[in-house]
Amino acid sequence: MFRRLLTFDEAKQIISNHSPKKPLGAEEVPLLKACTRVLAEDAIATLDIPPFDRSTVDGYAVKSRETFGAEENKPIKLKICGTVAAGESPKITVDRGEAAEIVTGAPIPTGADAVVMLEAAERRNGELHVYSAVVKDENVMKAGADIKEGETVLTKGVCLTSREIGVLAAIGMAKVKVYALPRVAVLSTGAEVTEHGRRLPAGKIYDINAYSLNAAVQESGGVPVYFGVFPDDLGTMKQVLVKALASSDMVITSGGVSVGPKDVMPKALDSLGKPGVIVSGVAIKPGKPVTVASVDGKLIFSLPGHPTSALLIFHLLVRPIVECLAGKKARKVLEVEAVSSARMFSAKGRRTFTMVRLKRDKSNKLMAEPVATGASGAITTLARADGFVEIAENQRFIDAGEEVTVQLFKKIDH
Amino acid sequence: MFRRLLTFDEAKQIISNHSPKKPLGAEEVPLLKACTRVLAEDAIATLDIPPFDRSTVDGYAVKSRETFGAEENKPIKLKICGTVAAGESPKITVDRGEAAEIVTGAPIPTGADAVVMLEAAERRNGELHVYSAVVKDENVMKAGADIKEGETVLTKGVCLTSREIGVLAAIGMAKVKVYALPRVAVLSTGAEVTEHGRRLPAGKIYDINAYSLNAAVQESGGVPVYFGVFPDDLGTMKQVLVKALASSDMVITSGGVSVGPKDVMPKALDSLGKPGVIVSGVAIKPGKPVTVASVDGKLIFSLPGHPTSALLIFHLLVRPIVECLAGKKARKVLEVEAVSSARMFSAKGRRTFTMVRLKRDKSNKLMAEPVATGASGAITTLARADGFVEIAENQRFIDAGEEVTVQLFKKIDH
Repeated sequence: MFRRLLTFDEAKQIISNHSPKKPLGAEEVPLLKACTRVLAEDAIATLDIPPFDRSTVDGYAVKSRETFGAEENKPIKLKICGTVAAGESPKITVDRGEAAEIVTGAPIPTGADAVVMLEAAERRNGELHVYSAVVKDENVMKAGADIKEGETVLTKGVCLTSREIGVLAAIGMAKVKVYALPRVAVLSTGAEVTEHGRRLPAGKIYDINAYSLNAAVQESGGVPVYFGVFPDDLGTMKQVLVKALASSDMVITSGGVSVGPKDVMPKALDSLGKPGVIVSGVAIKPGKPVTVASVDGKLIFSLPGHPTSALLIFHLLVRPIVECLAGKKARKVLEVEAVSSARMFSAKGRRTFTMVRLKRDKSNKLMAEPVATGASGAITTLARADGFVEIAENQRFIDAGEEVTVQLFKKIDH
Repeated sequence: MFRRLLTFDEAKQIISNHSPKKPLGAEEVPLLKACTRVLAEDAIATLDIPPFDRSTVDGYAVKSRETFGAEENKPIKLKICGTVAAGESPKITVDRGEAAEIVTGAPIPTGADAVVMLEAAERRNGELHVYSAVVKDENVMKAGADIKEGETVLTKGVCLTSREIGVLAAIGMAKVKVYALPRVAVLSTGAEVTEHGRRLPAGKIYDINAYSLNAAVQESGGVPVYFGVFPDDLGTMKQVLVKALASSDMVITSGGVSVGPKDVMPKALDSLGKPGVIVSGVAIKPGKPVTVASVDGKLIFSLPGHPTSALLIFHLLVRPIVECLAGKKARKVLEVEAVSSARMFSAKGRRTFTMVRLKRDKSNKLMAEPVATGASGAITTLARADGFVEIAENQRFIDAGEEVTVQLFKKIDH
């Protein structure tokens, strides 16, 4: 029976329909370990920041009104009644005619309402000469001026970088509730695929995809669970998939989904639970054989064996799901505009993704140069492509010299 | 004695002169753990990829010359001499008049030099009818076509992402030599600063900087070693700095470097070894009091206590050194062009860094909006600023409506 292949957009919709709509769960981690994690609940301040009126300069705490009229050659004279150090609760009170020595960050003592900067005063014969007036609250940061008790300082769903970690530290959070990291089982199939660590037997090749996909899971904010390489035998495959599903939140396999006589993956995928296979091939190039199953609420992605195709499909279809499970906001893929350096043909009727390498031409214009993704260059393409250009189903080609949008594989900061 | 403050560029040069010029060392890690690490030696292929001539399609391995002249209605007839499966060393030879069944990825058997695709042939009464000619090497990927034995597949200094991991997996590397991660001790000082996990005593504030800098070290590719909070007492400070230097490759402190009476940090820094303090204040705003010491080849950065200033100085002066120690290539800070939404004043004669938040205006133009960094908003600024705008020493201000370059704090992919 002939069935039309799903379009790229249809496949994405079906996968989205079957994927959990929210993060998997939350856990508490020490703030020191929370960098890169995603906040699972709003962070609410349980204290004012600063917790008390504090001096923002080194100087003298005074009653501001008493400094009115102070001038360079007509100083106001005050009695120094004591000192307030940072970190202490002031034991002194500033009464009429008095000033207290104070340092940056120290609490304003009772009776004072402003701070005269060190440079604007002078000690003379045990007295303080103030040469410049201050107004109420001058050089004082009021309690709660930065953050008020009860204020929401960060909202759920924020990815914690050094800056947000600083904010949480300020409000005294030693632990923080973050979304659990999704566990993603990764395995390779194929009789020719061999695990690392031993000499390569004749006719075999080393496993690539379990390694690159393992890293890709990490890059997407998941925890990869490396399962290794398995022969594409129906019994073995069913067994390992059951085990992978039991120990992980999602499973990624590669190889074994094309039309060859030994491809048992689709059968295995349909034998594990309901609803089974939900996507069986997509009208895209490369990656047409990609198969997706949903088993008791968990997704299994069977990617093609070709390493660049596998990683591309991960990028297009799997990464958004891993990120969603991790509680990350849907992010826009990093894009740059460039000029096509050669004609890029599409596979008519299929959404085509052409791997490109970015270069600058002589006039420093950013050029997108297609990189071979065919049979030859399967591996080296991986290292050479910076991203890909998308060509619509109804477009025949993109011509040399046309403006194109390149979706980047590489994070820009490496 | 009055000494002119170092300019920003002078300070960077002095720090660079005293910092190690190369990564700290190398270590071997399993390829599965190598993502985000930096390659410490060129990766050279010890085998051809593919290791053998392989079929790129499912079909029949033939002597190409024997298919010449085959047409839709005038097929060439061949005898099927056997089957080559993927992953096996072919036991059969294709002799004259013969064809061998073969799957994608399987080795081309001796005697054959091309593969007829499944769709271009048909089995009839035990014979193979070939309807379309193939030329030599058609549908065959030759041994070494992708990577040749002895070829350098990746060069030292490359940061390993999923793509590079795939390339290393292809050549069978189970372990990979990467640069060691620099260990960076992080500690806070100040009598008012309190460690987390207990109720805040009067006059105290929770530590912020050890947490945000701990995360910033991680973001720069270092391993933070959290030391905690210490009173700024000369004896204690010397002791903890000696311990921090002994256990780490670099030390970052914050607080205790302004001109207050209790600031013992500069004295402590100058007492530890040669040459001691190399930068004592820089003509920048914020962050003027930043102090840097070099002790027996290791750097100690004493950052200001103000959280936003501390993180900014980390970004400007410390991060490049951590990245260099980690073997990362000097990276250009991520920048975007925007339009200033308000006049930004400089501290004349000092390189000024104005924190800004990015927004789109009604016409979707990207605007850089200055964020207060003064005494008030010390913490919230951290969460609100997306980056900063640099104003040169000899520039009085940047006017509203001017084009500015915003250097981003945030990675774009979160």
